Amino acid sequence: MKPNLRIAIAQINAAVGDLEGNAEKILDYINSAKKGAADIVVLPELALCGYPPEDLLHKKIFIDQNLKEIKALARKVRGITAIVGFVDRQKKAIYNAAAVIADGKIKAVYHKTHLPNYGVFDEKRYFQEGREPLVFKVNGIRCAINICEDIWYPEGPLRLQAAKGAKIVFVINASPYFMGKVSKREEIIRHQAVANGVFIAYTNLVGGQDELVFDGQSFITDQKGRVIAMAAAFKEELLIADTSAKLALPDRLFALEEVYQALVLGLRDYVRKNGFKKVVIGLSGGVDSALTAAIAKDALGRENVIGVFMPSMYTSKKSADDSLELSRRLGIKLYKAPINGIYRAYLKGLRHLFDGYKKDNTEENIQARIRGNILMAISNKFRCLVLATGNKSEVSCGYCTLYGDMAGGFSVLKDVPKTLVYKLSKLVVNRHKEVIPRSIIERPPTAELRPNQRDTDTLPPYDILDPIIEAYVEEDKSLQEIVKARNRKPLATKVVSMIDSNEYKRRQASPGVKITPKAFGKDRRMPITNRFVEK
Amino acid sequence: MKPNLRIAIAQINAAVGDLEGNAEKILDYINSAKKGAADIVVLPELALCGYPPEDLLHKKIFIDQNLKEIKALARKVRGITAIVGFVDRQKKAIYNAAAVIADGKIKAVYHKTHLPNYGVFDEKRYFQEGREPLVFKVNGIRCAINICEDIWYPEGPLRLQAAKGAKIVFVINASPYFMGKVSKREEIIRHQAVANGVFIAYTNLVGGQDELVFDGQSFITDQKGRVIAMAAAFKEELLIADTSAKLALPDRLFALEEVYQALVLGLRDYVRKNGFKKVVIGLSGGVDSALTAAIAKDALGRENVIGVFMPSMYTSKKSADDSLELSRRLGIKLYKAPINGIYRAYLKGLRHLFDGYKKDNTEENIQARIRGNILMAISNKFRCLVLATGNKSEVSCGYCTLYGDMAGGFSVLKDVPKTLVYKLSKLVVNRHKEVIPRSIIERPPTAELRPNQRDTDTLPPYDILDPIIEAYVEEDKSLQEIVKARNRKPLATKVVSMIDSNEYKRRQASPGVKITPKAFGKDRRMPITNRFVEK
Repeated sequence: MKPNLRIAIAQINAAVGDLEGNAEKILDYINSAKKGAADIVVLPELALCGYPPEDLLHKKIFIDQNLKEIKALARKVRGITAIVGFVDRQKKAIYNAAAVIADGKIKAVYHKTHLPNYGVFDEKRYFQEGREPLVFKVNGIRCAINICEDIWYPEGPLRLQAAKGAKIVFVINASPYFMGKVSKREEIIRHQAVANGVFIAYTNLVGGQDELVFDGQSFITDQKGRVIAMAAAFKEELLIADTSAKLALPDRLFALEEVYQALVLGLRDYVRKNGFKKVVIGLSGGVDSALTAAIAKDALGRENVIGVFMPSMYTSKKSADDSLELSRRLGIKLYKAPINGIYRAYLKGLRHLFDGYKKDNTEENIQARIRGNILMAISNKFRCLVLATGNKSEVSCGYCTLYGDMAGGFSVLKDVPKTLVYKLSKLVVNRHKEVIPRSIIERPPTAELRPNQRDTDTLPPYDILDPIIEAYVEEDKSLQEIVKARNRKPLATKVVSMIDSNEYKRRQASPGVKITPKAFGKDRRMPITNRFVEK
Repeated sequence: MKPNLRIAIAQINAAVGDLEGNAEKILDYINSAKKGAADIVVLPELALCGYPPEDLLHKKIFIDQNLKEIKALARKVRGITAIVGFVDRQKKAIYNAAAVIADGKIKAVYHKTHLPNYGVFDEKRYFQEGREPLVFKVNGIRCAINICEDIWYPEGPLRLQAAKGAKIVFVINASPYFMGKVSKREEIIRHQAVANGVFIAYTNLVGGQDELVFDGQSFITDQKGRVIAMAAAFKEELLIADTSAKLALPDRLFALEEVYQALVLGLRDYVRKNGFKKVVIGLSGGVDSALTAAIAKDALGRENVIGVFMPSMYTSKKSADDSLELSRRLGIKLYKAPINGIYRAYLKGLRHLFDGYKKDNTEENIQARIRGNILMAISNKFRCLVLATGNKSEVSCGYCTLYGDMAGGFSVLKDVPKTLVYKLSKLVVNRHKEVIPRSIIERPPTAELRPNQRDTDTLPPYDILDPIIEAYVEEDKSLQEIVKARNRKPLATKVVSMIDSNEYKRRQASPGVKITPKAFGKDRRMPITNRFVEK
């Protein structure tokens, strides 16, 4: 027998720490759900405080204010049941919790039982594990709650809840995006629906938070694991559906478009939630800065993107022409600030120290750092955020200059390998129209810090490099395994050694959007001081 | 009845990841202990792989090689019992473990039962909890092992081990230093010895690893909680003592000397374990760079420290004289690189963009970043590590320039509040002789980035600021509590807001030695994007 309930999923973009603002937004969504005649409305995991609140959870005052807000919110909710994620406290322990609110009261509270403490997650740093597999009734139908990780375990609370007669399970989540996660997530949920014979309403957070972006894509499956309703990707939405609804074929983004949207939202939320409007980007004539600018335009509007072209004596006319053409096509402002005069002043100022020494990467780095200084000066003067333009391939190998091209408040492509930079440029940005000039995409990559420089002087070609990085960084494969996968041993050894020895640079890098299974940052916590070498 | 055993504590400095090198060192110490006729020799927690190995633990090959090394080591140990920290693996789970080695074999393995997952610790990210309170015999005497955190719990494994007749407990540790930790640690151990009627041999790691420094100070207490032997602070040592030994009065460093030694060792190990010999420091004529240089000299020798004086038009003659005098007294090299010419080149290059805008902190930051670029150029050219000189008070309030004075591979004073900078300068460095010129210590602090600038233009006096930082950062006190502790509300509000809004700068700061109960870095994980404001 099908349970009959009208469910509203409130897929909201909560801001970390903004207890009052989030509470207002939650109430708005609850009221809209009521207008839509929903029986129950479900908010994401920790919707009240945003996710992840990290060490804010160590502040007693933060927990206090969050408790005050959930109680104040409860008093305003009548005529509908609401499930709202918040931080509960019992004695001195805190819990990742969900409140069941109705008739102006918190009727029940569920505590998350499985606390993720891997990858980007540190939940055992803060929370105690819940023990009670709560089941409650809405319109006479037995319902249950799971919080995110709970549903990933076959032996999790769901089994007990189903045994106690639960027919509909509300899973509230803050499930960070990475490529391929969505289908994996759906598979688990559909499997759990079938295995336990329950409807599942999977509610996900949406929005960017530092290194993470939450993709939304909330959905409802019936007890046969069929998706009957699905919310948008990377957007807020109030999804209302009856459990009696017919099947809905989800309207999915294609894979590259999904990544692109993740980058757009991740950037937009970082900029806006930190109180900025504008960004400034050094345009080099290369594809990384071009893609970064295209993403920034889509995230913030062209009027909020400033390009800066900073030629040196090594900069080709092609770079100048291409940067100009790019900014024209994007419709963004382009400043020009040549660095030759400044560079000469450094060489002069350092001559007495460097006399007798050969030119080396020192002089290249000076140029990169002059550009970093100029961008930061523009940032300071006009209050706009500098976007660093390095990609994951460069950041992995340390093919980038600390305080130079790494300077910036946010690094849009930090987790995007170079081969994917090309795909996004060609197949997403230029899909319908050539926005990034073809000559930018087609030229061989170069840092233009010395005459006739090419990336391949230092790095293997990116189509060889990127799979090695993926194997080593994202999959923790050994050098031996990488060599077995048809890579030449000296080359693989060199790449692995570059990755290991540049941890110190990455530790000082700005945050960027995680889009792969393992990003640099809190996802991968390697020591800087590290003498491990595979034998 | 007193058990009679000769115990050797091998207080070694292990390098993270250096499995082979650590194994060699461990064997050396075991052999020395044998020569000293010890019955048993005890190595620190995870001595074989160094602590903390962080995400190296996710590499299967790392665990494999560690297992190979412990087995190879075991084969070489005869005529003595050794307890060695290593990573054990059972099925696919890994454990923070101790091997009991004798007669060329691993006789028993103990798994840590209490895994710290707070502060700087992430052990639940990696390890499974042990379940067995192992007891084993040495010379007919029942002995037991605890690993670090295990001993901090009254209900930990020790109670069961004592019930099973253990008379001597070997606690192996990697217990990071902070001010005041040592006496707390000793109190716990002495209390546990008395409560359970056991001898405790507390073996601690020594050495620096990224943000952490391990202080050694291993010791043995009898079953009445009396210290009968104690090893040195911040040095490797093989401490041999009989359980029948008379009481030893520990020869303790005074508190400030202890902090100073922590900074010296933390710096020395970061530099050397990362393959550097030399460091370069921007000397401003201020006390932070002076203290940093003094510490560097003590850590690395004067021949390995380069000072660079980089005057601008705002630099006073006093700063020039004091820097010269300081370098003379320390016996370090001093380079001079005036920045006026370079600064003018920037102003010229940016004139067309900044025309019509007033001078503001933009121009100050440009100067700081020129200095950062010069120091990095010297670092690149001569392969020496740049030391940043900012202190905890500045880093807390963001009174520092990203890529400017924050540039560097290591930040010695990152966790040292300014008031402590003065104390260390006056009472440790200048204790017996005026090494840091008095005029450096006595002048009012200034960044000298504009005419007549004083720190107090922007910050409250440090003796008011530092207690607020301590309360807010280290103790998670609320603004309300801080105001109650006799701080003016507008001032406290301003400081708290400065601390909150500068998280983005700290995220890009270099590592530095933790010396307080809560340092910036992995000890304090605050979101950058954070809208929490106390009401």
